[in-house]
Amino acid sequence: MEPTIAWQDGHVTALDQAALPHEVRVLRITTVDEMVEAIGRLAIRGAPVLGAAGALGVALAVRQGERDGWDGARLAAEIKRIAEARPTAVNLRREVGAAAAAIPLGAAAVEDLAVRKLEEAATASIRVSERGAAYLREACDAAPGPLRVHTHCNTGALACLGWGTALGVVRALHNAGVLSHVLVDETRPLLQGARLTCWELRQLGIEHYLVCDGAGPFMISQGMADAVVVGADRVAANGDVANKIGTYSLALAAHRAGIPFVVAVPESTIDSSTASGQAIPLERRREEEITVPAAPAGTRAVNYAFDITPAALVSAVVTEDRIILNGRWPS
Amino acid sequence: MEPTIAWQDGHVTALDQAALPHEVRVLRITTVDEMVEAIGRLAIRGAPVLGAAGALGVALAVRQGERDGWDGARLAAEIKRIAEARPTAVNLRREVGAAAAAIPLGAAAVEDLAVRKLEEAATASIRVSERGAAYLREACDAAPGPLRVHTHCNTGALACLGWGTALGVVRALHNAGVLSHVLVDETRPLLQGARLTCWELRQLGIEHYLVCDGAGPFMISQGMADAVVVGADRVAANGDVANKIGTYSLALAAHRAGIPFVVAVPESTIDSSTASGQAIPLERRREEEITVPAAPAGTRAVNYAFDITPAALVSAVVTEDRIILNGRWPS
Repeated sequence: MEPTIAWQDGHVTALDQAALPHEVRVLRITTVDEMVEAIGRLAIRGAPVLGAAGALGVALAVRQGERDGWDGARLAAEIKRIAEARPTAVNLRREVGAAAAAIPLGAAAVEDLAVRKLEEAATASIRVSERGAAYLREACDAAPGPLRVHTHCNTGALACLGWGTALGVVRALHNAGVLSHVLVDETRPLLQGARLTCWELRQLGIEHYLVCDGAGPFMISQGMADAVVVGADRVAANGDVANKIGTYSLALAAHRAGIPFVVAVPESTIDSSTASGQAIPLERRREEEITVPAAPAGTRAVNYAFDITPAALVSAVVTEDRIILNGRWPS
Repeated sequence: MEPTIAWQDGHVTALDQAALPHEVRVLRITTVDEMVEAIGRLAIRGAPVLGAAGALGVALAVRQGERDGWDGARLAAEIKRIAEARPTAVNLRREVGAAAAAIPLGAAAVEDLAVRKLEEAATASIRVSERGAAYLREACDAAPGPLRVHTHCNTGALACLGWGTALGVVRALHNAGVLSHVLVDETRPLLQGARLTCWELRQLGIEHYLVCDGAGPFMISQGMADAVVVGADRVAANGDVANKIGTYSLALAAHRAGIPFVVAVPESTIDSSTASGQAIPLERRREEEITVPAAPAGTRAVNYAFDITPAALVSAVVTEDRIILNGRWPS
């Protein structure tokens, strides 16, 4: 498989995730404009990958600035555009900031840092996966057989490098021989579950079933899942979780059914500078993502891309370094 | 507007609801095969309309039987096919049974009964609508301004004749000048919200916004709706509600947010012979309704068309005759 995103001969290559699964297309990104566009239309997506893209974007901006003779103010403005290409995932701003801080050390230093971020993200994802799987086996020890895991959106190698976060946990459970199957929300409107998660699970040979977003909570109420595992775009200091729209209703259902609702993320997704979910900016995207093609022409829509799950509904947040159980956030 | 379904010169005419909103096509249905096919592919749909279609279908079967020389056993078998064309809505079986009981009185009696059912359904829907609107105004009397109502699937004139059930309540609120706008779930996989509810609301000039099914519960948690109003395909004797998949998560969210979750139905949808939700057969439809076109070829799916909302999460069931408040079901 093509790497999700990489630095190659002074530019960025990235799998076009908006074209999957029907077309495997590799983008060659050489300018800030192209990077911002690719992030905006979700060709590059997933919180950890957005972090890597942010660092690579700064390296790209430095190269382009040298080529086009940008002054410091122009370079700073272009870097800001990358940081703001999408608002919710904290990883993007964080890694843009870290890479920008290395600019005084020279272009090579920025590129080294960006490439190192890619490797760190992959390593962290495998540690998140294994830690999450160990936690889940313990949390589900009353389950009668191999685990049935419900997940939302895409949190595999495409979103995170390495193994992924929530889907990495699934992979680790599968490797350990304790997974029955995965229930995958299609994740409207852009169908990352149907398009990307099903594609990854198929390549990994992991049994899975696609369901409509409206069906997951009911299926959980009927005892059809042993746990819900999702990733996140940002975890606030109090444990509130911002993730793809549709996550909140799974958390409600898991809470009522008494099954674990687990959030798997790298430490870099935890944002101690955001006090609670209410302070997280939620991206509202184009209405046409919902209205085309089924609704009558001219129909208005409200298209929140993310939602907030209050910490009270989260059983545990698992990172590469620790497991934060419900109610145990450091205050 | 064309009538949703009617009896005309010995056959049935019906708006093809699978073709809306992009094409307004009227079906001419003259055989049991055509009726069963139209119900199966949701060209004819909505619990009250399915009841009317059941009665009209029996009239059609009697005509076809006379034409084709069916014996009693054949006629009974054909009528059974109509009753079983879809499993969840109790109205279909109920009205097929009532019409079949009139067969000894002759074809004209069956036709008269079927046409009377159409009129009764329309009348009941307007009474449900006005009673529901009056209840909602009372239940939402703490709302600061005109009401913002969240709904699911399609429950308007297309589904119910007359004004509809849940969408009839919306219409009555609008007529009374106390409605701000409606939030409409798109209702995957067949998009009855996006295709049909938006189409009806547009014709009525009622402000509305389409949202993804995964977004509704979160928007409710953020205080964006004053009430949830839905219809039902069957209400069990204990108050459990079977309705289009995706209803349960709205009920969970409304319960947590402390806003009314109201079910508007004709009395004919209440099935005292079904003890609880667990006894209601839930239609599981073709996997391709979900997997095509976004998922990789060969992806498996689970496609429940309905879910069960436990009575404990329902604020009130409103019919043309009464309002049954949470916990007040006659035992």
